[in-house]
Parts: sequence; C-alpha cells; structure tokens
Amino acid sequence: MPVRLDEIVAHFGGNLRGDGSTLVTRIAPLDKAGPTDLSFLTNPRYRSQLGATRAAAVILPPEAAEGCPVAAIVTPQPYLYFARVSQWLNPRPRPAAGVHPAAVVETQVPPSASIGANVWIGAGAVIGEGAVIGANCSIGEGAMLGADCCLQANVSVYAGCRIGARVLIHSGAVIGSDGFGFAREADGSWVKIPQTGSVIIGDDVEIGAGTTIDRGALADTVIGNGVKLDNQIQVAHNVVIGDCTAIAGCVGIAGSASIGRRCTIGGAAVILGHLTIADDVNVSAGTLVGKSIAKAGTYTGMVPFMEHGEWLRNFARLRQLDAMADKIRALERRLQDLEKTK
Amino acid sequence: MPVRLDEIVAHFGGNLRGDGSTLVTRIAPLDKAGPTDLSFLTNPRYRSQLGATRAAAVILPPEAAEGCPVAAIVTPQPYLYFARVSQWLNPRPRPAAGVHPAAVVETQVPPSASIGANVWIGAGAVIGEGAVIGANCSIGEGAMLGADCCLQANVSVYAGCRIGARVLIHSGAVIGSDGFGFAREADGSWVKIPQTGSVIIGDDVEIGAGTTIDRGALADTVIGNGVKLDNQIQVAHNVVIGDCTAIAGCVGIAGSASIGRRCTIGGAAVILGHLTIADDVNVSAGTLVGKSIAKAGTYTGMVPFMEHGEWLRNFARLRQLDAMADKIRALERRLQDLEKTK
Amino acid sequence: MPVRLDEIVAHFGGNLRGDGSTLVTRIAPLDKAGPTDLSFLTNPRYRSQLGATRAAAVILPPEAAEGCPVAAIVTPQPYLYFARVSQWLNPRPRPAAGVHPAAVVETQVPPSASIGANVWIGAGAVIGEGAVIGANCSIGEGAMLGADCCLQANVSVYAGCRIGARVLIHSGAVIGSDGFGFAREADGSWVKIPQTGSVIIGDDVEIGAGTTIDRGALADTVIGNGVKLDNQIQVAHNVVIGDCTAIAGCVGIAGSASIGRRCTIGGAAVILGHLTIADDVNVSAGTLVGKSIAKAGTYTGMVPFMEHGEWLRNFARLRQLDAMADKIRALERRLQDLEKTK
Repeated sequence: MPVRLDEIVAHFGGNLRGDGSTLVTRIAPLDKAGPTDLSFLTNPRYRSQLGATRAAAVILPPEAAEGCPVAAIVTPQPYLYFARVSQWLNPRPRPAAGVHPAAVVETQVPPSASIGANVWIGAGAVIGEGAVIGANCSIGEGAMLGADCCLQANVSVYAGCRIGARVLIHSGAVIGSDGFGFAREADGSWVKIPQTGSVIIGDDVEIGAGTTIDRGALADTVIGNGVKLDNQIQVAHNVVIGDCTAIAGCVGIAGSASIGRRCTIGGAAVILGHLTIADDVNVSAGTLVGKSIAKAGTYTGMVPFMEHGEWLRNFARLRQLDAMADKIRALERRLQDLEKTK
Repeated sequence: MPVRLDEIVAHFGGNLRGDGSTLVTRIAPLDKAGPTDLSFLTNPRYRSQLGATRAAAVILPPEAAEGCPVAAIVTPQPYLYFARVSQWLNPRPRPAAGVHPAAVVETQVPPSASIGANVWIGAGAVIGEGAVIGANCSIGEGAMLGADCCLQANVSVYAGCRIGARVLIHSGAVIGSDGFGFAREADGSWVKIPQTGSVIIGDDVEIGAGTTIDRGALADTVIGNGVKLDNQIQVAHNVVIGDCTAIAGCVGIAGSASIGRRCTIGGAAVILGHLTIADDVNVSAGTLVGKSIAKAGTYTGMVPFMEHGEWLRNFARLRQLDAMADKIRALERRLQDLEKTK
Repeated sequence: MPVRLDEIVAHFGGNLRGDGSTLVTRIAPLDKAGPTDLSFLTNPRYRSQLGATRAAAVILPPEAAEGCPVAAIVTPQPYLYFARVSQWLNPRPRPAAGVHPAAVVETQVPPSASIGANVWIGAGAVIGEGAVIGANCSIGEGAMLGADCCLQANVSVYAGCRIGARVLIHSGAVIGSDGFGFAREADGSWVKIPQTGSVIIGDDVEIGAGTTIDRGALADTVIGNGVKLDNQIQVAHNVVIGDCTAIAGCVGIAGSASIGRRCTIGGAAVILGHLTIADDVNVSAGTLVGKSIAKAGTYTGMVPFMEHGEWLRNFARLRQLDAMADKIRALERRLQDLEKTK
C-alpha cells in the first residue's frame, strides 16, 4: 500500500521538505531506489549518491538536506527513523490464528495463537496470546512462551524453559539443552552432572538461526530483556547476559560467564568461563576474552592476516618472542658497558 | 522425595558426620542452600562460604570437615560424589513407552522404546530396548541406536549410522551428513566424491546441541566410548576420537584428524586435518592445532586481548616481527665489532 | 553390481593396463582394498603402498604406472577420475517419488518429486521435477526449489528463497533467516530493521549440515553456481559468494562481504563485513580476514600453538611488542652514537 510522506511524518516526526503528498511503497538504497521508493542516507560515505538518486524521497540528517534533489524527511537520526518506517511498511506476515490439524498439542493454547504443521507442544506448556509457532517446532513439557512470541520453523525448546514476550527465535535454534558438566573418574571416564537449572529469556529478545542456549547446572541461564543474538552463537550453562547486549554470529560463551548490559560482542569472539564483563563493553570480532573486563571500553585481540610467505616469516617469530626480548636486554647491558668505558 | 543422609552413604560410601536421619530433597550451592538442601564443597575458593551455609548437610573433603557447621558426608572426591548423588536425586524424566500416534515408524521398535510425535524412522532401522526418541527426530534407513539411547527433539541421524548404548544426543545435532570431499576440474568446478563410509559412535557418548558429525569418505568416522561432545562441534569425515575424550563447544575438527583417549579440547579450538593427537593431551580454548602432538601435556595458542588502542600499537608489530629479529641480529653484530675495538 | 575395467575406461577415458575383463564392485584405499576393489593413487606419499596392494586394479598417474603389480587405469588426473567413477558406482539412493501421507503440502508438487514424512511445504512454493525433500523439512511460502534438488531431513527454507537445480542441502541447514540488523536507540535498546531481501542460490551448490544463510536486508544474499559450503558455516545478510568457491566448516562471513569466484576458504576462518575478496584467493584455516584482498594468492593469519609453558613465556610478549620495537630503535641510536665516537 502506498503511503504519503506527510503520513509518515505524522507518525514518526522529523521535518518534511518537499511535497507531503508524495507516495512511497517501499524502502530502497539510494543507488537502487526508483520513483515510488523511499530511501535514506545514514553514512556520509554514500553522500555522493544523493545527487543522482531517483528515489521519491530520502530520509536524511540536517547537514545533508541542502544537497537533496527530491523530497526529504530530515531527522537527526536517519538510521533509527529508517528502521521504524521500515517496520511500519513491512509488518511481519502473520499466519492465521489456530492450531494446524497436523500439529500435536498436549496443552491448552489461546485461540489467538498460530501453531504450525507438525509442531509438538508438551503437556503443561503455556503459550502466550498471539504467539506464532512455525512448522516442526518442539516445545517441551511445562515450557512458557510469552505473548506475541514468534518461533520460526524447526526450533527446539526444552521442558521448563521460560521465554518472555515478543521474542523472535529463528530456525534451528535450541533453548534448554543440557549444560556440559561432568565429574571425572580416576580412569578418565566422565560422570554426568544433571543440569537441573533452566533457561530464562526476557522480553524483546531475538535469537538467531542455529543458536544454542544451555540450561543451568543448578541455577539458571539468564538472557536479559532486549538482548539480540545472531546465528550460531553458543551460550553455555549459567551464563548471564545483561539487557540490550547484542552479540554477532559464531560467538562462543563458556559456562558461568556474566556479560553486562548494552555490550556489543563482535563475530566469532570467544568468551571464556567464570568471568565478568562490565556494562557497555565492546569486544571486537575474533577476540578471545580470557579474563574479566571491569571497565567500559573497546577490547581487541584480533590477529592480522598477511600474504602467506610474509606470514611464514613473521609468525614463526612468535615462538621466539621471549628469546628476542632476552636478546634486547642483553644488548642493552652490553651497550651500557661500552658507553661507560667511552 | 526426601532422602536420609545415611541412605546416601549406604549407596555411595563416604563418612557421615552428624545426624544420619537428616532429610534432603535436592542439591544446591553453599550460598543458596536451604534447610532441606544437600550442598557440596569442591573448590577451596568457596571454603569461606562453608561457615555460613544454611544447608542441611554438605559433601566435602576431609581437610574441610572440621569447619562444617552442619552434617557432612566426608569423601576424598566430593565433586564425583556430588555428581553421583545428583544423578540419583534427579533421574532423567522418562516419557511413557510406546509409539506416539503422530510418529511415522517404518521399522519394528521394541515395546520398551518411546517414540515421540512427528518422528520419522526409516525402513530397516534398529532401535534398542528402552530408547527414547524425542519429537521431530529423523532416523534414516538402516541406522542403529543402542539400548537406552536418548535423542532429544529434532535430531537427524542419516541412513546406516551406528550408535551405541546409553548415548544422549541433544536437539539439532546431525549424525552422518556427507563429508566435504570434492575433486577439482581444470575450470575450478568441483566433482563430488561420494561419502560411502558411515559414523560409528560408541557407548555412553553425549553429543551436544547443534553438533554435526560427518560420515566417512571411504572408511568410517569413529567416536569412542565415553566421549563427551559439547554444543556446535563440527566433526569432519574420517575423524577418530578416542575413548573418554571430552571436547568443549564450538570446536572444529577437520577431516582424518585422529584424537587420542582421555584428551580434553577447550572451547573454540580448531584441529586441522590429517594429524594425530596422542592420548591425554589437553588443548587450551581458542588454540589452532596445526600439526600432530606426539606427547601428553597441555598445548596452547590462545591470543591475549587488550584495550583497543594498546592492541593497535602491539599487534601491528606482528607484521614486523621478522624485521625486528633482523634488526636485533644486526645490532648484535655491530656491537660485537665495537666491543672488539674497545 | 560388478563392473568391468574396460567398461569404466569406455565411460571415463584413461589408458587401461592389464586385463580389461577384471571386475570391480567398489572403491577402497590402497592399503584396505581387496580382490574386487578398485583403488587409486593420487598422493605420492602413498606410493610405497602400491607394491603391496591387493586391489583388483588401481587408478594412477603415468609416472606411477610402472610400479603397479595389478591392473591399472592410467590418467593424468587420478583424483578426478576416482571421483567420477565413484559417483558412477555409488549413485545417491533415491526414495520413491510421491508425497508421504504424513507430509503437509499446501502447494502443487510434480509427481516426480519425493516428499518425506512430516514435511511442511507452504502455499505458493514451487518444487522442481525430481526434487527430494527429506523428513521434517519446512519449506516456507513461495520458496522455489530447482529440479533434482535434494534436501536431507530437518532443513528449513524460509518464505521466498530461491534455490537452483541439483542443490544438495544437509540436515539442520537454515536458508533465509533474518539478517542481523538493528538501529540503536539512545538508551542502548535496539530497533529491528526488517530484512526484506531474500536468498538466491545457484545451481549445483552443496550446503553442509547446520549451515545458516541469512536473507538480505534490502537486496539479496547470493550464492553462485557450483559453490560448496561445508558444515556450520554462517553466511550473513547481503553476502555474495562467487561461482565455484569452496568454504570449509565453521567459517563465519559477516554482512555484505563479497567473495570472488573459485576461492577456497579454510576451516574456521572469519571474513569480516563490507569487504571484497578477489577471484582465486585462498584463505588459510583459522585466518581472520579484516580487510579487502584485491589480488589472487594465499593469505594466512593462523596462530601457532606451543607447549603451554613455552606459550606463556612467548605470548605474554605480545603485550610488549611495541615496547620491544621502541627499545630496538633506541639501541640503534645509541649504537650509532658510539660508532661515531669510535
């Protein structure tokens, strides 16, 4: 459905420049947008594309307004504005309410919920109003899903896990598998420690495809409100993740790590266990966090790459770093002796 | 059900201090335990919590017995003891035996097995006595599952894989997918090499959520008895893992790697292909094992992290390590010349 | 079925040495092959096994033909030859065509397709001739699968994704989950950016178990023809992967990365976002690619491992590298001064 620019501004604020009756139907990047598209400029790098855009209108910051050849919505935070308008123009498709005849539901679900084909929901599970559960999901006994949750196809929720409202979980995600806890016999074999804790997930959380969250050993694994987890993240038992922390794909978080609020963790980072990360910490991609971080800031341990031959020459030296440091110290001593006798 | 301390000691040994008629219902950490909880002290770090515990009783080592204000079970290995008692107090819930009406079973299964909703079991598969197969699992033709196996929801086992007794497999795990094997054409395109081997898994193995184990190319991929694999581990074709080895989450093991018995591999480690790791080797988290390890011991290649600015200054030097070594050598030579002329 | 050597040569070329009526039934490695097995020699390392092989015949390069004690097929590319013969001897088992009664199919599928138990296919999806969809797969509304695709059990394809012909997708893979895109509020909370792009996958692609491919934010995520992806790879939104590129297990590719044609990416490598990798680039295992690579070649950033004590001594110096470089410079200056006064 086409929307008028002045309708958008009435909803989301901002200053309109140009014709408020301009109609837009979808959002597109500056260089791809056509005459019924709304575009946006958030990164000054793309400013050069503004002059040539064929968009109907552009969301942009005040400092770029002058150079805009078409209608504009001027706002100090164009990226946020774009996100909100895009949500409005692209509401998530809602399947019809009701239980698919090929679903197996061994509990009561509210009529407003939508339960897909081949879903299994165990006895005692509690499903919130308006929840959407995609095909082939499994919801264990006594699990709780808040209102307006959305589970895409093939999600597994173990018995007893508690998930808040408006949580979006992508395919292949697993919530509540056993933590990895064993005691060792003298002969090296392992005795399993029952994982009797649960997983508690707050409201407005997003969990990516293939992400796994283990249940706690004795206490619970806890994911705060507004946390965003990308794909293929591993969250071990008893981990605590503070509100509004965002974690990129392929991150591994070991047992009992405690991560603060509003942190960002880059892709493929590794957080070792039994440590604490303060609020507002940014961990760079590919960084292994091996000890606690007490202070907000950005922390990095990423290794540079090189052309292979250069790498061979340089990285072999890593095995000699301590010897190099010793040699430097010896040189300093000998030089000092020489300088004295000068 | 409450259990008396003297019953526990009758089962598991250890020396009882205090009133054997004391009742406990569950296990809890020292600082959280209440008057019907059994607690345990395994790490000397928590010894300070012992004096103030409100637990009914504590499992602890002889050297800590004196300081215990409540009843105690004294044992040289309190962690193992805790694991065994916890298993006794927390038996895994067993769903009722029988085949769910919404399961599709194209083979014979023993009456003692429990087959969940929306499970598919292909023709010729062999399911052991007492096996539990959770909702939405797929078991390919001719696969074999030993007695008392437990597959949580959404596990995929390919045709012909053989899994031992008492194996626990968590949701999202995949057993028997094709190994990654291709021959390359002159134009760069790839010709698939059929993966005609299988996956053979021993007894008492645990396999974490989202872990994938590829079938062998010509021979089999082999997981020994008592192996414990955490979540999101990738085991490539023709890998062999020795008995009682434990591997933490997010580890990747490349093709034809052979890992010994009783090894421990830390989280997010990477084991390259066609190499051999001896028995009793410990690999630290985040370590890339790029060549064989012939001797038991601990091996590490973890990279430290730093505050970002500090990292920029230091890690940029990695590209100059070889040049730094050359400079040191040149300095040594010049200094030697000077020393001679002194 | 046994096959004659001269039949194989008639199909695939090569020079036959020895008796063309020799029968073989399967392929086996040199040291395991028995009297009805065809073997192959591709790696000179295994040449010593040739003299003692009990195989019926061996595929080998001209330079090894002399030493072969049994019949041989001589070809300059024995590995490719082996792959082709193996495909011929091991055609992928095809389940019977037709829709399993326990599948839920809300679209039309061609009679030649095979749809397994507990599959769900949404309205408007288009399934190609001869496609095979394993048990418990979910195919979203309007998704398209090309002819002769094969989806193993438990694959999730989101609505609207387009997959080419002869694509093989392994269990647990997820195609079309939302990209990880959010705008940040002043209070640190996140506003989801709807991911309105799709995933477009070419022909002859293989996708490993547990691999996840996100849909694009505005444009599409694009996987070229002949691309081979191993297990547990994460492909973020708007990534483009060129034709015939092969990527090993556990690789993470961040958003909007563009990877060229015929590249090979080693296991557990990490490709950061918004960068470009040229055609014919090889990235070594465990390497983090943090900036664009403009030129074909091999690039590496793998960190060596050491015995733990040695590691402690050497890697601690990484925090002092910059200081070491400063000390070397200071030594050079002081030495120069001394040399002048000599």
